[in-house]
Amino acid sequence: MPTKNYAKLSLTLHKKLRGKISIAAKTKINNREDLSLVYTPGVGAVSSAIAKDEELADVMTWRKNAVAIVSDGSAVLGLGNIGASAALPVMEGKSAIFKRFTDIDAVPLVLATQDPDEIVRIVQALEPSFGAIQLEDISAPRCFEIEERLSKTLNVPVMHDDQHGTAIVVLAGILNALKVTRRTTKASVSIIVNGAGAAGVAIAKLLTAAGFKHVIVCDRQGAIFAGRPGMNPSKVALASFTNPGKKSGQLSEVIQGADVFVGVSGPGLLSPEMVKSMAPKSIVFGLANPIPEIMPDLAKAAGAAIVASGRSDMPNQLNNALVYPGLFRGMLDKGVKQVDDRIKLRAALALSGFVKKPTAEKIIPSIFDKGLHQAIARSVK
Amino acid sequence: MPTKNYAKLSLTLHKKLRGKISIAAKTKINNREDLSLVYTPGVGAVSSAIAKDEELADVMTWRKNAVAIVSDGSAVLGLGNIGASAALPVMEGKSAIFKRFTDIDAVPLVLATQDPDEIVRIVQALEPSFGAIQLEDISAPRCFEIEERLSKTLNVPVMHDDQHGTAIVVLAGILNALKVTRRTTKASVSIIVNGAGAAGVAIAKLLTAAGFKHVIVCDRQGAIFAGRPGMNPSKVALASFTNPGKKSGQLSEVIQGADVFVGVSGPGLLSPEMVKSMAPKSIVFGLANPIPEIMPDLAKAAGAAIVASGRSDMPNQLNNALVYPGLFRGMLDKGVKQVDDRIKLRAALALSGFVKKPTAEKIIPSIFDKGLHQAIARSVK
Repeated sequence: MPTKNYAKLSLTLHKKLRGKISIAAKTKINNREDLSLVYTPGVGAVSSAIAKDEELADVMTWRKNAVAIVSDGSAVLGLGNIGASAALPVMEGKSAIFKRFTDIDAVPLVLATQDPDEIVRIVQALEPSFGAIQLEDISAPRCFEIEERLSKTLNVPVMHDDQHGTAIVVLAGILNALKVTRRTTKASVSIIVNGAGAAGVAIAKLLTAAGFKHVIVCDRQGAIFAGRPGMNPSKVALASFTNPGKKSGQLSEVIQGADVFVGVSGPGLLSPEMVKSMAPKSIVFGLANPIPEIMPDLAKAAGAAIVASGRSDMPNQLNNALVYPGLFRGMLDKGVKQVDDRIKLRAALALSGFVKKPTAEKIIPSIFDKGLHQAIARSVK
Repeated sequence: MPTKNYAKLSLTLHKKLRGKISIAAKTKINNREDLSLVYTPGVGAVSSAIAKDEELADVMTWRKNAVAIVSDGSAVLGLGNIGASAALPVMEGKSAIFKRFTDIDAVPLVLATQDPDEIVRIVQALEPSFGAIQLEDISAPRCFEIEERLSKTLNVPVMHDDQHGTAIVVLAGILNALKVTRRTTKASVSIIVNGAGAAGVAIAKLLTAAGFKHVIVCDRQGAIFAGRPGMNPSKVALASFTNPGKKSGQLSEVIQGADVFVGVSGPGLLSPEMVKSMAPKSIVFGLANPIPEIMPDLAKAAGAAIVASGRSDMPNQLNNALVYPGLFRGMLDKGVKQVDDRIKLRAALALSGFVKKPTAEKIIPSIFDKGLHQAIARSVK
C-alpha cells in the first residue's frame, strides 16, 4: 500500500514546512517613502476612495483574487468529524493547489463551531474580505442548508466543493466513459450512486440536470425511493427526481443490469459479484479515499470496461482539484455572483472535452495538463 | 502638504498592485508525488495526527505564524466609520508590514457587522485558524468590550492595536522625552491626554501602570473627573484612576502648567497659546493623522522642548508599526496566551531603550532600525 509511505513522508514534510502556505508582500517597504504609500498617510486616500465607491475595493485590494476556504471539520476526507484544527492541513493543501494552478490567494478558515446558523452568519460577515467562498468538508445534510442560505444572501459565489467539485468531475468522467463504451443515448443509461452524503446528492442532481433519466442513489439502507419511510428532507428531495421506477432493495439488488456505478461511500462496499451483475461494458467509479469501494484491478477482473478512483497512484483519477482552481478563476474574473447548474455543466463539458480521444485508461485529464485549468476558467460565462 | 502627493501616488500604486499581499505556496507541486504529499492521500495522516493531539497543528500548519487582523471598519485612521471594504487597504498595509519586519503571515478580515456580540462570536469561532488576533480600527467604547470578552475566552493573545500599540509607543516616547528634559521623577510629571477614545483610554491606563500619578484625560467636554455627569462606563472607569485632583475645565484650562501633552484627538486642537501655558521644557505629542493637534514647528515656536507626531515626514514619528510586528513575533514564539500590562510595559522599555542616547530630535527609533523588531520580540517573556 503506497498510502502508508505517503503518510510518513507527508508527516515529515509538514513538520519541516510548518505549514504549506504563507503571506507574501507584493511591494517593497525599504524606506519612509514606501511606508507612506503602503500605509499611512497614503493609504488614507485609498480608503476614502473605497468609502465613496465600494466596488473600488475590487481593483485596489486583493479581494477579487482572494477566496476563503471555510470548513468546520465535520466531514474531513474519509476521516469524519475530526474538528477544525485537524481540518487545517487539508485546507492549506487546497490553498497551495489554488496558488499553483490558477494563482488564486485562498485563505484557510477553520471554525470552532458546527452550528449552521453560526457558520452562515460568520461567512456573511466575512463577505467584504473575499471575492468567493469555498465551503469544504462540512457534513451532510448541514452542508446543503448552509450553502443554500449563503448562496441566496451573498453577492459573491459560494460553492461547497465536496458536492459540486465532485459532481462536475464525475459527470465529466461519465461523459467520456460513455463515449469509450459507445453508449450514445444519455436517457437510457442507468446509473447507481452509492452514498447519499454531500457528494452523492450533488452527483445525482447534476446528472439529472445533464439529462440522465435513470439515476438511483443508495444509502446504508439501500435504494432511496419516493415514499421510503424515515428519510430526512434532503433524501425526500432526492427521491423526488431520482429512481423513477421506485426500485427498492439493497445495492446488490438494484445494481443488477446497471451501466454505471459511482461510489462516494466507503472502502470495499462493491463486491466483484455485484460488478458481474452489471450490464456488459460496465463503468465503475470507486471514489472512496484512500481505499475505494472496489480496487480497480478487481473491478476489471469482474468485467468492468472502465474503472476510475480518487487515487493519484491509479489510472483515471477523479479529483476535485481538476476543477476548482479553474472554476474559481473563471468566476472571479467574470464577476459571477452565483454558482448555478449551467456553470457546473459547462465546466464538466470543458473537463471532458479536454481529453481529445478518451480511452478506457484515460477518461479524464491530468491536473498537470497544460491549459486545463485555463480551459475550465474560460468555460465560465 | 506632502500628504496630497502621497494620496495620488498611493492610489496609483494600489490600482497597479491590485492589493498589497498574496498567498505563497511553501512547497512545489510539480507531479502526482508532490500532490500526494501536500494533499490526499498523504495529508490524511497529518489530519489524523492532529485529531489525536490538537497541539500538533502548531507545528504542522501555518497557524503558529498566522495572525488575523480583524476590523469592522468603524474607526478607520482619521476617517471614522467608513465600513469594512474601505478598511481593507489599511489591514493589507498592516499585513505587508508584519511580513516585512517579522515574517508573520497576517490575514486581513474585514467584517460586515458592527455588533459586538457578533464580532466576539466570529473571532471565537476563528480561533483554531490563527496563533493570535489583532483587532484594528474598531470604535470606542465597543472596542473595550470586544477585546475584554475575547481576551477572557480565547487561548491565543488578542490585542487591539489602536489601544495598546499606541499606548506602548507613547509611553516609550514619554520615557525618552523625560530623559532629554531631565525630569527624573515619574510621580511628579503631569500629563494631559486629549481624546478619550480607544487610544486615549489605553494611554491613560498604561501610563498609570508605569507609575505616572498625574494623568488627566480630556474629551470634547473638557477634563474627565470622578463625578462628572453623563459619562459612559468606560469614562467612569477612567475617572477612577486618573485626575486625582478632580480638576475640571476645558483643555485650555487644565493644560496650564502641564509637563506633557498627548493628543489622540483631531487636527488643530492644540493652540500655540496652550503650549505657552505649559511648564517650561514642555513635551508635545500631536498624534492625530494626517493633520496633528498642532504642527511641530508651531509647537516648537511656542516653547515646546520636544515635539512628536504620527507623520512619517516629520521627526519623532510615533507609529504603532514600531511595536506590533515585534510584539506579535514575541507572543507567537513564546506561546503567550494573554496580553497583560507587564508585556506592554516591557515592550515600551525595549522600544525606548533601543535609542541609546535620546535627543530632542530622536526620542524614538526608526521602524527601519536594524534589530529593533527583534529587540521588541525578545522583550516578551
